[in-house]
Amino acid sequence: MADTGSVDVSGVRLRPVEHHLDEILGAVPQPDPIELAVLDAQGLLCAELVTSQRSLPAFDQAGLDGYAVRAADIVTATVEQPVDLAVVGETAAGDGEPTSISAGLAQKVAVGAMLPAGADVVVPAAWTDQGAARVQVFAALAPGSYVRRVGDDVATGDTAVEIGTPIGPAQISLLAAVGRERVAVRPRPRITVLCAGDELVDVGAVAGPGQQVDVNSYALAAAARDAGAAAYRAGIMPNDRRRMVELLEGQMLRSDIVLVAGTFANGGHDLLQEALDELGGVTFTQVAMHPGPVHAFGKLGPDAVPVICVPGEPVAALVAFEVFVRPAIRLMLGKRQLFRRTVQAVSAQQLLSPLGYRQYLHGQVMRHPDGGYVVEPIGDGDQAMLARMARANCLIVVDEDVTEVSAGGLVTVMPMLLGG
Amino acid sequence: MADTGSVDVSGVRLRPVEHHLDEILGAVPQPDPIELAVLDAQGLLCAELVTSQRSLPAFDQAGLDGYAVRAADIVTATVEQPVDLAVVGETAAGDGEPTSISAGLAQKVAVGAMLPAGADVVVPAAWTDQGAARVQVFAALAPGSYVRRVGDDVATGDTAVEIGTPIGPAQISLLAAVGRERVAVRPRPRITVLCAGDELVDVGAVAGPGQQVDVNSYALAAAARDAGAAAYRAGIMPNDRRRMVELLEGQMLRSDIVLVAGTFANGGHDLLQEALDELGGVTFTQVAMHPGPVHAFGKLGPDAVPVICVPGEPVAALVAFEVFVRPAIRLMLGKRQLFRRTVQAVSAQQLLSPLGYRQYLHGQVMRHPDGGYVVEPIGDGDQAMLARMARANCLIVVDEDVTEVSAGGLVTVMPMLLGG
Repeated sequence: MADTGSVDVSGVRLRPVEHHLDEILGAVPQPDPIELAVLDAQGLLCAELVTSQRSLPAFDQAGLDGYAVRAADIVTATVEQPVDLAVVGETAAGDGEPTSISAGLAQKVAVGAMLPAGADVVVPAAWTDQGAARVQVFAALAPGSYVRRVGDDVATGDTAVEIGTPIGPAQISLLAAVGRERVAVRPRPRITVLCAGDELVDVGAVAGPGQQVDVNSYALAAAARDAGAAAYRAGIMPNDRRRMVELLEGQMLRSDIVLVAGTFANGGHDLLQEALDELGGVTFTQVAMHPGPVHAFGKLGPDAVPVICVPGEPVAALVAFEVFVRPAIRLMLGKRQLFRRTVQAVSAQQLLSPLGYRQYLHGQVMRHPDGGYVVEPIGDGDQAMLARMARANCLIVVDEDVTEVSAGGLVTVMPMLLGG
Repeated sequence: MADTGSVDVSGVRLRPVEHHLDEILGAVPQPDPIELAVLDAQGLLCAELVTSQRSLPAFDQAGLDGYAVRAADIVTATVEQPVDLAVVGETAAGDGEPTSISAGLAQKVAVGAMLPAGADVVVPAAWTDQGAARVQVFAALAPGSYVRRVGDDVATGDTAVEIGTPIGPAQISLLAAVGRERVAVRPRPRITVLCAGDELVDVGAVAGPGQQVDVNSYALAAAARDAGAAAYRAGIMPNDRRRMVELLEGQMLRSDIVLVAGTFANGGHDLLQEALDELGGVTFTQVAMHPGPVHAFGKLGPDAVPVICVPGEPVAALVAFEVFVRPAIRLMLGKRQLFRRTVQAVSAQQLLSPLGYRQYLHGQVMRHPDGGYVVEPIGDGDQAMLARMARANCLIVVDEDVTEVSAGGLVTVMPMLLGG
């Protein structure tokens, strides 16, 4: 497939990062909303307009422990000249029997208890003598004080949670309050992670000469889960075309995205590329980025499942995930912000970058004591440097047309939050 | 129990927020580390010093597709005057047979393939004529170029992941690379969430006169999970002391913290307080905070399980969670940052606050176009306002000795991140 937007750099035909990203974002499906129990909806985006079928509160009630009275009866009350009222009863939270008071009377009430008809204020216990048969009130209060009125929180028919709202503890509180046990949400995309390569052995195995431990299926599954997907680590591809095709077909049935990490010949034909061709074919391209320029994307099988191929070198695999896969997952989740926010930072060192390639370097970004940010690269991008990547807290992005950033120059930095 | 640090405000004996927090933080247990499969360790803190039993890479290898040669042989190579070498073989990734070259020879290599003995550089295919029997090299390269050396990433015995490091995708990548299938981590604290109150009915039920739907067990379980705990929503307490005690005993057996939301009489004796007394007793106190001053804490049963009681009013319950329970969960997780970071913001409105109480108001904080932050309160703190809380993105904290913040004045704001 000709890529009209590609550019030639030193005789190599390169596809701009944005073109590859746009193709992926334009092709990932929008999963249908699903209904989940409210607690399982946590962290997802609401996919329905939830309106309240109830008023909250459902009845006028006391806002704290005290005495329900008529505001008009206590307008003259002071500590020196208390107003004395007869206590006609007591109501606890949960009592369902309506009560009422008239002029000159008070009813003892607990917080959350139904307000007696006729009362329009609750006098906090601390502002009375806390009497049982009669009560002395020491202060005047405006009508409505310490009373929660029907519908103060939500009136019947009001919007409780809007479409697209992220569901957190406060939304779960509100959903429960309006009586919802289940809610429609944008589901977590199901991503299957595979890795391909004759040299790969599983983590538990001892790597022989020339062999490599499969780190990508672990790292990419973790990254996919971190981005909000339901990730399934399917591990190392069998070393046989027929079985590869069967495995891919099986995983495509139960996945919204299939993610494959491997070392691919650009335009060449290894086993995996033959297997993918048999399923409809993905397009391998040189993307104008470092590390790891060889990428591929296609929609395969009867359900046109997106298959994203990222480089097999572990650092390049996680960078590719960050650049192409995380935004796709967030798009499927319905998030408005597909990309991490970036900041400008002062580079503590000189950075070199190949012309025509967008370079992603792992770095450590810190706040500068005088304001702004300072960033220091970790390693130089040519090596796998897993141990160094694990110490990074950001990616430094050096644009295609920049070959050198001098020490003290500004660079774009993408902080990657870690729990801590 | 006398609280020596308490202060009197308008005749009410109040315990400072910090005292209550310190008591809880001083009393929560430090759970023993557990071993988990590396993918299940995601988001937790490493509890062991992981050192590498391997070198990474395990063998010198090609950093990209090209030709392994001796740097000394190509020092004169240019596009105009290429150096011509005999290609003696080809090595793919995963090939385990060691090879070697001598002066004047080249070996075709794929990225990840073992470097032939004698070679010290890999010439990228693009800088050659890509010949099969003989190859023309167009550029000189420094020794070591495009070669990944044994131990470049991690040397045997090197530290891979340190104690206290949060385990994210990069750490999982590294753990897999050093051959770890399992890792010791600080476990998620197990928190059981209960709520107490005669007036409560479950979400699915229709609330009768005077009844309230239980929102707290949902909201607090969600908040606990959000903070990193393994939360178990045990729902509404039975309305019977004997069964309450049995339920609490059962939950204490399987919990690191028991969290109870309810409307408690301060110093009074309702059913729950009697049940807690039977198990050893918790101390109910008036904490100098709004909303919801009545709090309790104790360590109950033979295992001295921390029991935290928070107010039953749903907004006060989530504020209390934020102030007391979230830091306790983070302490148990081993996090260094127990508290959310706070920022100073300009208040868009006048704020009133009771003297002697630390007031927490829900608000919306925004970046100001001219720099800094502006915050606007949502509601006034006296009402339950679930719907308003759900629109908030921060808590505004007004200190005990402040009774008024004028519009334009600075206040402390605790942003609460929502996915979005």
